[in-house]
Amino acid sequence: MPFIPIATTSLDGVTEQSFTVDDIPGVLWTPEHETGPRPLILMGHGGGLHKKAPGITARAARFAAEGGFAVAAIDAPNHGDRPRDEKFTRAAIDMRARLASGEDPATAVAGMHELLAGQAVADWQTVITAVQQLDQVGAGPVGYSGFSLGAGLGVPLVAAEPRIRAAVLGLLGVTGMAGTAVQVTVPVLFLLQWDDELVPRDQGLALFGALGSADKTLHANPGRHGQIPPLETGDALRFFVRHLGTPRG
Amino acid sequence: MPFIPIATTSLDGVTEQSFTVDDIPGVLWTPEHETGPRPLILMGHGGGLHKKAPGITARAARFAAEGGFAVAAIDAPNHGDRPRDEKFTRAAIDMRARLASGEDPATAVAGMHELLAGQAVADWQTVITAVQQLDQVGAGPVGYSGFSLGAGLGVPLVAAEPRIRAAVLGLLGVTGMAGTAVQVTVPVLFLLQWDDELVPRDQGLALFGALGSADKTLHANPGRHGQIPPLETGDALRFFVRHLGTPRG
Repeated sequence: MPFIPIATTSLDGVTEQSFTVDDIPGVLWTPEHETGPRPLILMGHGGGLHKKAPGITARAARFAAEGGFAVAAIDAPNHGDRPRDEKFTRAAIDMRARLASGEDPATAVAGMHELLAGQAVADWQTVITAVQQLDQVGAGPVGYSGFSLGAGLGVPLVAAEPRIRAAVLGLLGVTGMAGTAVQVTVPVLFLLQWDDELVPRDQGLALFGALGSADKTLHANPGRHGQIPPLETGDALRFFVRHLGTPRG
Repeated sequence: MPFIPIATTSLDGVTEQSFTVDDIPGVLWTPEHETGPRPLILMGHGGGLHKKAPGITARAARFAAEGGFAVAAIDAPNHGDRPRDEKFTRAAIDMRARLASGEDPATAVAGMHELLAGQAVADWQTVITAVQQLDQVGAGPVGYSGFSLGAGLGVPLVAAEPRIRAAVLGLLGVTGMAGTAVQVTVPVLFLLQWDDELVPRDQGLALFGALGSADKTLHANPGRHGQIPPLETGDALRFFVRHLGTPRG
């Protein structure tokens, strides 16, 4: 699983390195001109989005610049630059039809996450190993951040992968997740949107309740699914500094 | 309503000034050796406690030392150094009996808060006016912080008092509060304990939902009524700096 570098650019003190590992397309952000090991934060994107969606790149750049972290994002299976398979295409059509008909989307969303989770967990495990061999990353503690689909794939990843020591998750309900959520035991910051049109409020609260972590905090804000307020990025950064440390002391 | 100073001590860069205003006993914390106006944070204590309860003094000292704020606490009616009246004494006995019998305490707790709220609001309004005449406080923006009884008296105060621009509230349910909560329109940070044995979870969530503020955030943590984790003090401090400003620029 060689790390194959593609393109590198630097902006505002952050180096952005595109790569592939085993045909998985990814991006790595690190503080420019800083060497040596540092905590690695994995960022899982939302459904229908990709590794360089604006929400991902903005948060990644800030985590690298302000926290000194290495941040990696990859395209989820069937997303971004990756090929679509027939099973996914059928499931996506089915999910959109259910959403359009006004049905409770929880079961369809959970089915989609279940369809992708096995591959996504394996992808991330491969990418952690490859990225941590780089000098500017190293084998430090790992964090995970993901909302919506990024949480639906993140809960099974965090439950399965002992290198991950802390996670920011949210915009996800408990349907299909309760058994896996209880296996998450690392510190979690969980974000819930009070007026989420895709995740019923009681479903999101129930997923927070189901997490096995002794150290977990729920942050809830008014607004719809995609409207997490910007100040939560600062709270997430402080959360990762607290639990992963910072290379800057 | 003269501000009558009583005793002054200083510790770790914070001056603690005991006072009375109109027979209301209070304490004012300010950064030692700092002059000129600064935002004022009012701290309401919990039921059965008083103006110098450990939770109050620890938070007040940190807000003054780290934020440069002036912080004032007073004894609630029938608490601390203030006389008890017969109506309160009967209500307190009744409330304890209901708690001991395992009844839902919400109605009794709401009745107790309603009994004290009118006087408490008037007390705080008098104290704001008196304390803001001091050189080291001045007529800057005001914040309010209170949990449990401190929130039960704080919601009507924040609803009624336009000098208050931001509030940290929590550990309180919606019973008897919905109509007043909707009149709270300033930014609110609301704390909820996930395993609160005195405030049912859905009651706390409903009070957060009822607040009229467009800018409000819920922070929920595992643990019982009195077990707010220490890191929430830092979050509250950042919340007040964001909404009241800081004299230190």
